[in-house]
Amino acid sequence: MKHHKTIERLSLYRRLLQNLENDQVENVYSHHLAGMCNVTAAIVRKDLMGVGYLGNPRHGYQVNSLLKCINVYFEGNEANNVILVGIGNLGRALMSYFSKGNSSTTILSAFDLDDSKVNRVICNVKCLPYDEMKTFINSNKIKTAIICVPKVQAQKVADNLVNYGIKGILNFAPTRLLVPDSVFVENADISMFLDKVIYFASK
Amino acid sequence: MKHHKTIERLSLYRRLLQNLENDQVENVYSHHLAGMCNVTAAIVRKDLMGVGYLGNPRHGYQVNSLLKCINVYFEGNEANNVILVGIGNLGRALMSYFSKGNSSTTILSAFDLDDSKVNRVICNVKCLPYDEMKTFINSNKIKTAIICVPKVQAQKVADNLVNYGIKGILNFAPTRLLVPDSVFVENADISMFLDKVIYFASK
Repeated sequence: MKHHKTIERLSLYRRLLQNLENDQVENVYSHHLAGMCNVTAAIVRKDLMGVGYLGNPRHGYQVNSLLKCINVYFEGNEANNVILVGIGNLGRALMSYFSKGNSSTTILSAFDLDDSKVNRVICNVKCLPYDEMKTFINSNKIKTAIICVPKVQAQKVADNLVNYGIKGILNFAPTRLLVPDSVFVENADISMFLDKVIYFASK
Repeated sequence: MKHHKTIERLSLYRRLLQNLENDQVENVYSHHLAGMCNVTAAIVRKDLMGVGYLGNPRHGYQVNSLLKCINVYFEGNEANNVILVGIGNLGRALMSYFSKGNSSTTILSAFDLDDSKVNRVICNVKCLPYDEMKTFINSNKIKTAIICVPKVQAQKVADNLVNYGIKGILNFAPTRLLVPDSVFVENADISMFLDKVIYFASK
């Protein structure tokens, strides 16, 4: 298993390559990618060798074949299907975001504890009752979930997700979740991002 | 100026202390905070000394006075007022998020290039025409902005913000921004967070 930082860089290369492909750029040099990522070209080359890309860095990488290679690295199986819990403003914004081709991930279904928010389709995402979540996770072999419920509900939702077999959680609720070591949690605490920006903006 | 990682930890202590205060917990030990943050108690004590907190770690920190101390550290002046650019789904979700007391930051005003989206109030945030942004930044001494416009508009918006004196940007657009070294950018690329979770969930 690779280190967190390697995965973050690979994900960033992927993002940059997607944008280059959209702009119809055909080739990119390791030092060019390195400059955009604030790392050295040697790190870029090492990372890309690590995902099995065999291009010749001296003549630049081919954008589309390198992107395909990183996509395969991330995607294996149906791992890119995720579910979302919490159909509030943020949940709806995320469904919209992922429906617009900003990502290769698909939100397959969304759930909410409030029955008045389900049994509809938002941005192509089916919104289902919370008590159907367990069956849905099992039958679709879902491993990853996005939590965007209010803080007070987040731990309960996380407990349920873990019991139903979820192995990775992207948590937007402004609280830390307690989960077993076998479950990976990435916290996207928007207020904390902003704390950091405000601090560095004021120095 | 402190290191990025220190600022991230201080912001995390702040989040945890806010939650402890809401739960009416009065005291917390450095090893307790350390456990919640995955760092050592020695790092917690060093960080907290660095912001001038003089509590005795042997008897635990007082939650509310420690929180006050970190707040003062982050807040000086009116630095906690920010603006937002891009009144789409995500922009609206962020206005809602910050209006709900999830943060001590205030979104003072929001702007959009599309005039049909402005001249209204959303979650107590005044939405103003884009061509009033420069004057607003100057008269309110704003240093920090949140970008949540589509990818194709993000660089243009960033250029304008930098010209108008913004020193820190929280960027939700799925692209890297080119800004002068004097401007701090934090990228909140939601799809990249999810890449990482999916990777670790599938291993």
